[in-house]
Amino acid sequence: MNKNLDRLNALMGEVMDLRHTASMLEWDERVYMPRGGAQTRSLLLASVRRIAHEKFISKEVGELLAALRTGVDGQDPTSETARLVAVTARDYEKATRVPASFVAEHAEITSMAQHAWQEARAKSDFTMFAPHLEKIIGLKRRYVSFFAPTDHPYDALLDDYEPGLKTKEVETLFDALRPRQQDLIRRVAERPQVSDRLLHLGYAEQGLWDFGVQVATAFGFDWTRGRQDKSAHPYTTDSGPDDVRITTRFEAQQPFMTVFATMHETGHALYVQGVDPRWRRTALEGGASLGIHESQSRLWENLVGRSLPFWQHFWPVLQGQFPSELGGVALEEFHRAINRVQPSLIRVEADEATYNLHVMLRVEMEIAMLGGALSVNDLPRLWNEKMRDYLGIVPPDARRGILQDIHWSIGLMGYFATYTLGNVISAQLWERFSSVEPRRDEQLRRGDFSSLLAWLRREIHQHGRRYEPQALVERVTGSRIDPLPYLRYLERKVEEAYGA
Amino acid sequence: MNKNLDRLNALMGEVMDLRHTASMLEWDERVYMPRGGAQTRSLLLASVRRIAHEKFISKEVGELLAALRTGVDGQDPTSETARLVAVTARDYEKATRVPASFVAEHAEITSMAQHAWQEARAKSDFTMFAPHLEKIIGLKRRYVSFFAPTDHPYDALLDDYEPGLKTKEVETLFDALRPRQQDLIRRVAERPQVSDRLLHLGYAEQGLWDFGVQVATAFGFDWTRGRQDKSAHPYTTDSGPDDVRITTRFEAQQPFMTVFATMHETGHALYVQGVDPRWRRTALEGGASLGIHESQSRLWENLVGRSLPFWQHFWPVLQGQFPSELGGVALEEFHRAINRVQPSLIRVEADEATYNLHVMLRVEMEIAMLGGALSVNDLPRLWNEKMRDYLGIVPPDARRGILQDIHWSIGLMGYFATYTLGNVISAQLWERFSSVEPRRDEQLRRGDFSSLLAWLRREIHQHGRRYEPQALVERVTGSRIDPLPYLRYLERKVEEAYGA
Repeated sequence: MNKNLDRLNALMGEVMDLRHTASMLEWDERVYMPRGGAQTRSLLLASVRRIAHEKFISKEVGELLAALRTGVDGQDPTSETARLVAVTARDYEKATRVPASFVAEHAEITSMAQHAWQEARAKSDFTMFAPHLEKIIGLKRRYVSFFAPTDHPYDALLDDYEPGLKTKEVETLFDALRPRQQDLIRRVAERPQVSDRLLHLGYAEQGLWDFGVQVATAFGFDWTRGRQDKSAHPYTTDSGPDDVRITTRFEAQQPFMTVFATMHETGHALYVQGVDPRWRRTALEGGASLGIHESQSRLWENLVGRSLPFWQHFWPVLQGQFPSELGGVALEEFHRAINRVQPSLIRVEADEATYNLHVMLRVEMEIAMLGGALSVNDLPRLWNEKMRDYLGIVPPDARRGILQDIHWSIGLMGYFATYTLGNVISAQLWERFSSVEPRRDEQLRRGDFSSLLAWLRREIHQHGRRYEPQALVERVTGSRIDPLPYLRYLERKVEEAYGA
Repeated sequence: MNKNLDRLNALMGEVMDLRHTASMLEWDERVYMPRGGAQTRSLLLASVRRIAHEKFISKEVGELLAALRTGVDGQDPTSETARLVAVTARDYEKATRVPASFVAEHAEITSMAQHAWQEARAKSDFTMFAPHLEKIIGLKRRYVSFFAPTDHPYDALLDDYEPGLKTKEVETLFDALRPRQQDLIRRVAERPQVSDRLLHLGYAEQGLWDFGVQVATAFGFDWTRGRQDKSAHPYTTDSGPDDVRITTRFEAQQPFMTVFATMHETGHALYVQGVDPRWRRTALEGGASLGIHESQSRLWENLVGRSLPFWQHFWPVLQGQFPSELGGVALEEFHRAINRVQPSLIRVEADEATYNLHVMLRVEMEIAMLGGALSVNDLPRLWNEKMRDYLGIVPPDARRGILQDIHWSIGLMGYFATYTLGNVISAQLWERFSSVEPRRDEQLRRGDFSSLLAWLRREIHQHGRRYEPQALVERVTGSRIDPLPYLRYLERKVEEAYGA
């Protein structure tokens, strides 16, 4: 058994090396690659990914996993070895059930669809994208069939991002969130509005960057095992816990995005940096799910980074960075501005109170499409109806409506739900942490995040992919994924800012 | 035959993708990687390189090459296909003759030797490094045996960097250079010395960087297919002609190194960017040899970059960058300073008149060690004797003597000669270009390098590895590698600066 495990670890180590290599090539492509290198880079990435895939789905890996599963049979199924074998076997099964010809067809169709989407969005013409979306739905239906039977076809898509989570669970969660978030938005609309004008003054990029770095450092980002750069879309990537890279961006129209993106990505990065070194180069390295990952980024960005105690410490630091812009501004005014609630058309610009509603309308449409209950041609109408229903506004064009996200065009379905799961779980963790650390706000007011980070390290980070998301949340908070903490958090915050 | 060629190109394409990937991982390691990532990175690189090697030495590649060699038999051996097959087969044979166990042992011994060298250098104690060097010599003797018989054992080492070049040819070249360079240095020593004090004032790094970028741009560096960054040791790397990366560095003690390193690396980069796109992802991509590569870097750095016509154009630009430091300095004074001849202890700081002598003493010692005529214990004494003989100075310690270079510790033997070959070939090319372009200096004085670059593209760059170095030099200049143009160039330059 030990010999088999050693051999599996050696083979998986090589596979992980190749996956990490692909991540580094991608990082370079987004951050530093000269634009003329694009074609070569796509060939490099294709080769590295293909070889990683071939090595992973090899007969030897399959045989080792079969032998090891027999070996751990009867043992505690939550033991480290049992989970290592189970998670690797799960990945293996998913990878081997999908034929190589399907992967190639998927790559081809989504490559064309992505270009079509870009053009359709530029021209704000959904009909240009519709036939491609039809094909992608077809692909997804076939993909689902590789994993039949499932309770709901959409389960198979969800499972790629949230192992073990069911469509039914997501629907129940949404049903709990939807009415109370809609109600909250309506109540805010009746109150005097908050101005966020001061967030849109001219702020020097370097000052925002420097402030963000100070915050990331205070959060606990280990700069000897990571770095920050700029890219068009902020993200986090890594080649294991010892080399974790975040990016941010600067946009003159929304200067504070630079800072909040740094906080958000630092949340992801702290997770990766905190995985137990024993899981390096194994299938247990990385995060339990996208939702759990997002719970970390949202926790640091929103629960910490938009809280009053946090800013009680950092407000003078920010004022020092921007004395002429912010020297005369009251902390409370700034805090209200960064927590303003305002229904808007674009998901990625949405505030905490409206964000989940953007997600829900997309996920509901995905579920209906997969279930066969919705045709592509009906999408634009339905999109606008749901926008009116959930947010009280209707996009004036498809560009700012159904064509705004890249996800469907590149074949990402089942993915959007993870954003809302992240929000919901972040509040569950925050409530739990508050109950074990009564001096939480006092620590934040001192800019001391060590207790929070230590708790997250112990409860979440170190375990990597050892637990499935529902099991992990239950292990830490005592309950499964639960919408109430997020609703409580949101309602309290809105009441403070709007008296609503 | 076409089918076999297509298949070979597909397999080699994958191998080249992996080699390029390794180059990018290495670049990242030197330029941006957080230091905590070192251990992970060495694993990534080892996996990628091992897989590239395994894929290259596969049975299928061997069979395709055998079939293709039969196919091109009787055809023009200089035809593109014949050369593609011949060069790939040559690489294949070299790669397959060396057992994997030897490669592993080499990696292990040199890894320890490199650490020992670092410590020995820090303590200036050659005896700490000597036993490791003994082992490395042993390795090299065994390496040579894989390629027996050779005229001289050292031939096999040279051949890795200069395909087809013989030890005898190198010795003949050195015998022609040595006495005239020694004589030149002695004559300079008798003349009033040139001051280069003005090169060691405080110059702002950014200004030097900006000036270097202007020069690289004027030389023809394509920034859409390349970039420049900083690293501890300036170098050039690529993932094919469309993504070529150079680095430079800043040292307060030698500020103009930033500029000359940029010129040098730009010379390498122009070569890579200029390879015929048809050779992308084949064994013919890249440079004919290290010597030919160095001829490109030295040509742009020295023949162009230290010439009076070049500075007649760029002097006002540099003065504009540093008005307070250089505003009152005469062009001629600056030009003399950057061409100062002064025997010194450290190879990498040597000027054009003394550099080859540093190289010769190393290569002569390597040849003697490989031939068995020299024991490791005799090296320090011999080093100092040769330094006195060639340069008239003796290192006060091993740190500034025999322990100064990393090469031997990492197993690089047969490599040093390529520096001198580069110098020599650069002058041959320069003479040849002058005869086909009589307006050469006039163009330089205008900052117009288009005619020079077009000529190099046509004569050298586009061919990649199609020709062996001697054949390429003969093709372009009408003669094989020849020391006289370099000696003429050097003697003329020294006469101008010193009247000697």
